[in-house]
Amino acid sequence: MERNIYLKNVSVEKAKQLWHNNNFKNFQTETIDIREALGRIVSKKVVAKHSSPHYHASAMDGIALKSKITVGASEANPITLFEGKDFIYVDTGDLVPNPYNAVLMIEDVNHLEGTGITIEKSITPWENIRTIGESMVKGEVILRKYQKINAFAIGLILEAGMTRVEVFKKPVIELIPTGTELIEPGDALAVGKLIEYNSQVIKAMANEWSVDVIRNAIVPDDFDLIKEKVLKASERSDFVIVLSGSSAGSEDYTSQIIDALGEVNVHGVSIKPGGPVILGQINHKPIMGLPGYPVAAALNFWLFGKEVIFSLKDEKLPKHKKVEGKLKTKINSKLGYREYIRVKLIELNGEIIITPLKRASGVIGTLVEADGLLVISELSEGLDRNTKAEVILLNEAYDPKQTLLLKGSNDIILDILKNEMAIKGINLVVNSTGSLGGITALNRKECHLSTAHLLNPETEEYNFSYIQRYLRSQKVKLINLAFRQQGMIIQRGNPKNLESIQDLVKQEITFINRQRGAGTRVLFDYLLEKNNIKKEDIIGYNREEFTHMTVASEINSGSTDVGIGIQSAADAFDLDFIPIAKERYDLVIPEALIEDERIKKLLEVINSEQFISQVKALKGYDLSLTGKVMTNENT
Amino acid sequence: MERNIYLKNVSVEKAKQLWHNNNFKNFQTETIDIREALGRIVSKKVVAKHSSPHYHASAMDGIALKSKITVGASEANPITLFEGKDFIYVDTGDLVPNPYNAVLMIEDVNHLEGTGITIEKSITPWENIRTIGESMVKGEVILRKYQKINAFAIGLILEAGMTRVEVFKKPVIELIPTGTELIEPGDALAVGKLIEYNSQVIKAMANEWSVDVIRNAIVPDDFDLIKEKVLKASERSDFVIVLSGSSAGSEDYTSQIIDALGEVNVHGVSIKPGGPVILGQINHKPIMGLPGYPVAAALNFWLFGKEVIFSLKDEKLPKHKKVEGKLKTKINSKLGYREYIRVKLIELNGEIIITPLKRASGVIGTLVEADGLLVISELSEGLDRNTKAEVILLNEAYDPKQTLLLKGSNDIILDILKNEMAIKGINLVVNSTGSLGGITALNRKECHLSTAHLLNPETEEYNFSYIQRYLRSQKVKLINLAFRQQGMIIQRGNPKNLESIQDLVKQEITFINRQRGAGTRVLFDYLLEKNNIKKEDIIGYNREEFTHMTVASEINSGSTDVGIGIQSAADAFDLDFIPIAKERYDLVIPEALIEDERIKKLLEVINSEQFISQVKALKGYDLSLTGKVMTNENT
Repeated sequence: MERNIYLKNVSVEKAKQLWHNNNFKNFQTETIDIREALGRIVSKKVVAKHSSPHYHASAMDGIALKSKITVGASEANPITLFEGKDFIYVDTGDLVPNPYNAVLMIEDVNHLEGTGITIEKSITPWENIRTIGESMVKGEVILRKYQKINAFAIGLILEAGMTRVEVFKKPVIELIPTGTELIEPGDALAVGKLIEYNSQVIKAMANEWSVDVIRNAIVPDDFDLIKEKVLKASERSDFVIVLSGSSAGSEDYTSQIIDALGEVNVHGVSIKPGGPVILGQINHKPIMGLPGYPVAAALNFWLFGKEVIFSLKDEKLPKHKKVEGKLKTKINSKLGYREYIRVKLIELNGEIIITPLKRASGVIGTLVEADGLLVISELSEGLDRNTKAEVILLNEAYDPKQTLLLKGSNDIILDILKNEMAIKGINLVVNSTGSLGGITALNRKECHLSTAHLLNPETEEYNFSYIQRYLRSQKVKLINLAFRQQGMIIQRGNPKNLESIQDLVKQEITFINRQRGAGTRVLFDYLLEKNNIKKEDIIGYNREEFTHMTVASEINSGSTDVGIGIQSAADAFDLDFIPIAKERYDLVIPEALIEDERIKKLLEVINSEQFISQVKALKGYDLSLTGKVMTNENT
Repeated sequence: MERNIYLKNVSVEKAKQLWHNNNFKNFQTETIDIREALGRIVSKKVVAKHSSPHYHASAMDGIALKSKITVGASEANPITLFEGKDFIYVDTGDLVPNPYNAVLMIEDVNHLEGTGITIEKSITPWENIRTIGESMVKGEVILRKYQKINAFAIGLILEAGMTRVEVFKKPVIELIPTGTELIEPGDALAVGKLIEYNSQVIKAMANEWSVDVIRNAIVPDDFDLIKEKVLKASERSDFVIVLSGSSAGSEDYTSQIIDALGEVNVHGVSIKPGGPVILGQINHKPIMGLPGYPVAAALNFWLFGKEVIFSLKDEKLPKHKKVEGKLKTKINSKLGYREYIRVKLIELNGEIIITPLKRASGVIGTLVEADGLLVISELSEGLDRNTKAEVILLNEAYDPKQTLLLKGSNDIILDILKNEMAIKGINLVVNSTGSLGGITALNRKECHLSTAHLLNPETEEYNFSYIQRYLRSQKVKLINLAFRQQGMIIQRGNPKNLESIQDLVKQEITFINRQRGAGTRVLFDYLLEKNNIKKEDIIGYNREEFTHMTVASEINSGSTDVGIGIQSAADAFDLDFIPIAKERYDLVIPEALIEDERIKKLLEVINSEQFISQVKALKGYDLSLTGKVMTNENT
């Protein structure tokens, strides 16, 4: 089929060029009340219906008179005037009639008995009068075509004697979510079913760009049904977006349907996070197929959909706002793909540090947290440490000076800490690298602080020996956050009758481990060695998770029997728990930052009743030394 | 009265401090559908109701198998597997059940007869599986208190299995416009009546900051009536704003009413454009009295109201965005007042030039045009030419590179030109300085181009001699815009029987003049001299207006008999016209800018059918040389 010629995996620029060759525009206009027109685009120049003021208006409460009559008036030489003969009283806004040509403020008038006054001040012609047309003249063009109506323009049109304005119609965007595996928010969850929320994200993004959105209910993967919806949407709306389920099947449907009803211009763009975005047209209206992974869907809509929306609005596309920062970690990227890395911007030692967030395409939370996007060229294999780079802002309210970056060991109480810090106006970003990862990051000055619970098996002391060995670039203070109970997280009711870590080698037991560098992993490996257990004998030893909660969540699902983690995580899922060890969990803070306002607030929080009472409500914490500076003697 | 102690004419900082001592906050919350919560502020941390994915989900269409079974598979060594025994088919999103721990893409499967397949590739454990909690874990804090809900956060909450979220209530702002002289938009105009539009501007500004607004109908200047409205508003709304008419009387009412119902904290701030803004509280709710002049009202609301609104929203106040530029004109400012000058930003010769707009407090159009505000300290008497300064952006879509500044002689066709340039994406800013003012500005490189119609009385040649004399810093080209008919603009039906300029000296005739430096003034003075008429004999010779249209508007009002101006202005007001001279009206463009993209577009426009047909529809223009380069021979 000849029509089936379209380009696959093209560059962003090529894709835009191919799509915009369709020259999507909106020529429809409507006449609306100016009081409802904020943010709309003028489609026909607006001409003042009358002058404003439309008469010589007094700008003051006072008396209208001929300026000539005041010549020579002074305190030493007051001039007496009479109402009706020499002047009339006027209030602000009153007409100043012929032959009067000036207004004297009422404060400058001395009243005599009867109709007489004296004045002690001379004034110039037209003083204190708003002359005809001061603000605008009848016939003047007061708003031009394509001008965006701001709050002040509303006043301008009303002042010009009009209440209505001709503007371009708001384009209507129509969303069609498809996928048999999808359910609507609020529907009961079931295995194999995923909540459809991509369309709600795309709708909100479009709403932020001030267009109206029709969202269809989920359409199952049925070619004819989807085709029918697309056809109807392309008839009544200005821009149609098919949101594919994440299955390859439904993506194919979208491209085939567009091909049948119109034309596919692009199928797949060489970006990451990507997925096979489809750009095309039906009846000269733009149509887009978005991939199923939420970050890929949002990114493609932001990259391609936004531009089309502004074109349909007849509004200039706002320029990206950019900020320069420095990378403290190396980023790898695949040659041939332009990668958009979600990043957080933090201020550290006077520099703006670009901190990459998770790159998984399925984790929408990274976009919630991201301050911006770091773009890595398709010609680059990545960026080195200490490279300066520009970040495109997604969140214009970003505030690197009110952001703290913690890399280190994960704990549920960090969630409480994050929320309490947010109340104090500080955005605490937690990057779960494990204790050792955190200390290494502090050594490279990549973050503000760290958390650690690293046991030295020889001395049974916590953290100090690791810091001596791995954190040499700066002096730090250890401040205790809590002592916490580590143990085996197991199924409710302990169906496999586990008693101690000796049982982990049994053939019927599946285990889930923590990642290398995690303090919990260090503890576990120490316990294995102490008990002469071989790693190879444990089924699942090599399967790694990054947090206590993901370990507990995995056990809760029933597919794994046991993992090592903290008691509060077991309790969060109502799982059983076999205690193994109580360990010290410390904050590691550079001495140079102890007086930093953000760190001061953090220390305030961990000493606050508000924080402590929330931690106490969890199981497995001992707060007797919380907030205390740790020394080798505390061990 | 002790309560009556409040500060007058304080600084901005002092005023804010006094007012914010009231500590206005909004603690009310509501639980709403997350799909309606874009831009709202979270009032209680949000915890994930379940993990996502909530089961091990296939990330591909393919087969689920044990990774171990694939070890060693390659093209040379395909492995044969059987459905049910070794693998099961899964679609994207399907559960990967125990004991399977990996998914192979369907593209990598070779189907045999029956239930057999072969594979030529080995995969690692958990490949192509979205494990439980990859995106979020049950119990995890996914949104913190005070977090602003962006488009992605909507997806996050839906993914977490919830549809509702607790947010702070939107504050309600209530506006009470007062003033007996005011009428509602759309009401019939009458002398002494002014259209009330300040409340509509303030409403739109508040809407831009995402709060709801109740606007009352206009309340006449009646103390008890206004007091009743204020009391009711302070009971039902979160922030009350009384918009005073421009009369001193109504302002006094506002302060007395606030004093009676609550407390006045500030009355008058030392800013320009200012007016006696009132800041106070009633029942711990903020109340503000705004001055009557529209620019002063908007400025005070922006300065003081915005901060309170964000405080009531429990949202961080966005920081001002600032841009640096250079002044090309000296600005005077009054010591003791902090002045906020409305400015336009233009790019000229690689620099960002700050161009002040009109400073009148009654001209709202200047705020429509302004890109930002230049702040002049109360300790300064002004800024010199060539000073670098920072501008606070009002219009973030400002684009100095798409802006052209024309200073020079005014004409109605510049309105047409502005609109046609807007269609081409260029913002043409016209500053009516008169011909000579324009040429001087070009000499000082303050603007891109100029318009002039300067007659040399000795040679009767246009523009060249003035340029030789006053424009020495750069070479320019003269390009004809039009020839136009100058004459006497007079009352309809010529009631005073005017015939020629000789008649202007008659005792019963009042005249209105153009400003010094205007080409029309030069022409007029030349004609007076030629006809031996003395300036002193003309009543109104010293009254100056800046444009043809304001002259015509003035005559149209009936208070003046005659002025000198162009025929199109007379025609716009349907006035009579006595021709005097046909003159040449040229564009003056620096040679260095002839290739500038903006100038190229301008020249395209003046040669376009679209432009020419609109000018032809006006009276008094000859376009025979329009667009042609003028030389001394053209004269």
